Amino acid sequence: MIEEGTPQKTPLSQLGEFGLIRHLTQAVTLKNPGSRTGVGDDSAVLSFPENTEVLVTKDLLMEGVHFDLSYTPLKHLGYKAIVVNVSDIYAMGGTPTQVLIGLAVSNRFPVEALEELYLGMFLACEHYGVDLVGGDTTSGHQGLTLSVTALGHVPAGGAILRSGAQPNDLIVVSGDLGGAFMGLQILEREKVAYRANPNVQPELQGHEYVLERQLKPEARKDIIALLAALEVRPTAMIDISDGLSSELIHLCTASGTGCKVFEDKFPIDPAVLRLAEEFGVNPITAALNGGEDYELLFTVSLSNWEKIKANPSLTVIGHMTATPETQLITTAGQAIELKAQGFTHA
Amino acid sequence: MIEEGTPQKTPLSQLGEFGLIRHLTQAVTLKNPGSRTGVGDDSAVLSFPENTEVLVTKDLLMEGVHFDLSYTPLKHLGYKAIVVNVSDIYAMGGTPTQVLIGLAVSNRFPVEALEELYLGMFLACEHYGVDLVGGDTTSGHQGLTLSVTALGHVPAGGAILRSGAQPNDLIVVSGDLGGAFMGLQILEREKVAYRANPNVQPELQGHEYVLERQLKPEARKDIIALLAALEVRPTAMIDISDGLSSELIHLCTASGTGCKVFEDKFPIDPAVLRLAEEFGVNPITAALNGGEDYELLFTVSLSNWEKIKANPSLTVIGHMTATPETQLITTAGQAIELKAQGFTHA
Repeated sequence: MIEEGTPQKTPLSQLGEFGLIRHLTQAVTLKNPGSRTGVGDDSAVLSFPENTEVLVTKDLLMEGVHFDLSYTPLKHLGYKAIVVNVSDIYAMGGTPTQVLIGLAVSNRFPVEALEELYLGMFLACEHYGVDLVGGDTTSGHQGLTLSVTALGHVPAGGAILRSGAQPNDLIVVSGDLGGAFMGLQILEREKVAYRANPNVQPELQGHEYVLERQLKPEARKDIIALLAALEVRPTAMIDISDGLSSELIHLCTASGTGCKVFEDKFPIDPAVLRLAEEFGVNPITAALNGGEDYELLFTVSLSNWEKIKANPSLTVIGHMTATPETQLITTAGQAIELKAQGFTHA
Repeated sequence: MIEEGTPQKTPLSQLGEFGLIRHLTQAVTLKNPGSRTGVGDDSAVLSFPENTEVLVTKDLLMEGVHFDLSYTPLKHLGYKAIVVNVSDIYAMGGTPTQVLIGLAVSNRFPVEALEELYLGMFLACEHYGVDLVGGDTTSGHQGLTLSVTALGHVPAGGAILRSGAQPNDLIVVSGDLGGAFMGLQILEREKVAYRANPNVQPELQGHEYVLERQLKPEARKDIIALLAALEVRPTAMIDISDGLSSELIHLCTASGTGCKVFEDKFPIDPAVLRLAEEFGVNPITAALNGGEDYELLFTVSLSNWEKIKANPSLTVIGHMTATPETQLITTAGQAIELKAQGFTHA
């Protein structure tokens, strides 16, 4: 389905391990003043502004589990690998500054494929203002494994944890939900069609929005800036990687609260509603369990209602409760207990 | 070959992804004052002492490439995964403080196997005084993938880079070389014997030293303390993970020097010499290309000679040169150009 971008195929063995690392990272220039030394030493050396704390997070992306190269361009994969990690820094209210990349590849990938992958990573690094300061490249027996570590900082004591929500706090979500999931459905459908008949062109036109949500998500850097501008400080925050349902349960468990969210408040794009009907999927299920939207889910005290209510980027979907139930209230007024997803690939 | 330590086999699916993370990390207590929050948020929150810089490094360990579970106990693997990462912090002259663990596992591993793996990681964390502050656990289609990120700190401006060596600086190595390689040869031999006849007991007795070098290496925390006590500051440093030859070339390339090292100066344990003869391997080759010894290789200015020469933990093996050749001088006085290894598994 994805056309090969380049006809050249240089085997990895031609460069060797050290040559490959040098080749892939030679274009790196360090832009953050805190990135003292980067690739090429046993560790990177970093400094952070005074009176800040350091944030660090890591995520593994495994071929066949987290991505399917039959429809994921490597450049997009590289971009997304950075996005999902810096998203975890924003979810603490922080500023991302550096990433490290671990890469395990089998011989099946030519050097040019890895160049594409790194091109995507560099684009994301530039967009989010982070420096690539290190990592590890190794051979693997099969497939592609990407391990990204991201670092950043917050004012000391200012990290927004999952545990700070209080009963009656408003539950707010940025952007809209379910798009990445519907994008995945389209890609999977076209993959099946392509396998049945490789001469058929994939039907991707008109679905740009949901495809981009799946293949090239963005971390909500802008929402952190917006909250600062509105002078709204969330009491708890998390990014939506596994689906709204899981993340709500994480917030409630960490904060020792329950929650009540209202199905009719969920922000769902018309494109998602249309596709959900076409695929026979409940759009609420897509929003709750689809995951990979990388929107921010946070709680704020009631006093922020006026600042938030009219903002098109923010939607209040419910509130935290003192009782431990995590409830979805349907349009019909029925209360349903939320369930966490996880390890769905295993 | 390795006996199952526990007869119980709880499938991973029984706990689910979030349950598994909670289960494996519930015993974690944060001991470093700088570990503000650990596992259980989108990012860990860390603080570092004033006037220090932050060190960060990461390494991937792939089953079938970096380890063979037919003879590597999972507890040892967990220990080693931490060691190879904190070793990179020591190689900068730093103090390791935190680690993050990324783990991808297939269904083939029961929960009890992962408990063993984590037990080894916790042991190493305790030994090196580092806190486990985060990570990522996911399913993988085959085998075990471990991705460790380690953080630490050095006094600001005090990181010992690879690039600081000067012509005429002495080249020093800690401990002895080639042991991990010979341990691997024994394990591979016994694996072949076991496959031919599973009733034969492996012949491991008497080889404790080299087996421990391979299966349970230690990072040279003590050498960093020793250098401080001797008031010796290396001009450049690296840890020996890929073999002396590669690491010498890294130091020379980064420092813009050449080097001359003398085969008859190499510190090689008698057990390694004996086994090298038994296996028909040149012990110098084992030292140069074997790798995984996790000793420190560093350069010091000539003025440190008196402080270093009689120390049983340190051996001067040669010196840096102004000319770019990286030369091994054999016992017969012949000069041989050193070659880097790398991607040998691919």
